[in-house]
Amino acid sequence: MSNKQLDQLRQELDQVNLEILDLINKRAELVQKSAQAKEKQGANRSYDPVRERDMLNLIKENNKGPFENATIIHLFKEIFKAGLELQEDNHSKALLV
Amino acid sequence: MSNKQLDQLRQELDQVNLEILDLINKRAELVQKSAQAKEKQGANRSYDPVRERDMLNLIKENNKGPFENATIIHLFKEIFKAGLELQEDNHSKALLV
Repeated sequence: MSNKQLDQLRQELDQVNLEILDLINKRAELVQKSAQAKEKQGANRSYDPVRERDMLNLIKENNKGPFENATIIHLFKEIFKAGLELQEDNHSKALLV
Repeated sequence: MSNKQLDQLRQELDQVNLEILDLINKRAELVQKSAQAKEKQGANRSYDPVRERDMLNLIKENNKGPFENATIIHLFKEIFKAGLELQEDNHSKALLV
C-alpha cells in the first residue's frame, strides 16, 4: 500500500470522526429535549438504570464488530455519562436564573 | 409534552445510538486497515501523538455543541484508545499463528 492509499485512509478516518462528532451532539440534543419533557411532567429527569440497560441491550444486539461488546458498552457508558452531566449543568444553570 | 412524544424521543435516541455504533465500528475497520498498511511499509503501527493531536484539532474546530470541547475530547480519546487496543489484540493474535 502506497503513502497515497494511507493518506486516503486518514481522510476517511477524519470524515468518520466528524460524523461521530455530529451524532454525539445530536444525541445530546435529544437527551436535553427528553429531560425537559420529563421535567414538565414532573417526572425524575435523572439517571434511569432500566432505560440505560434497555439501550445497552439494543446496542449489543446490533453490534457486528470489529469491536467486542465489552468495548462498545464501555464507550456508550461514557457517552451516556456525558449526557447526564450535560443535563445536570443545564439544571444548575436554570436554578441560577 | 405527552408520553407519546416522549416515546418518539426515545425511539430517535435508540436510532442515533445505533448510528453511532455503526460509525464507531466503521472507524475501527479503518484503523485496522491503516495499521496493516503501516506494517507493510515497516512503519511503527502504534500510538502516533502528532496524528492524534491533528485529529482532535479538526474535531474541536468542527464542534458546534451542545457538548463542550473538553467533553468531546474526552469521548474521542476513549474511542482512540479502544482503536489502539484493537490493533494490539490483532498484533498479538498474529504473533501466535
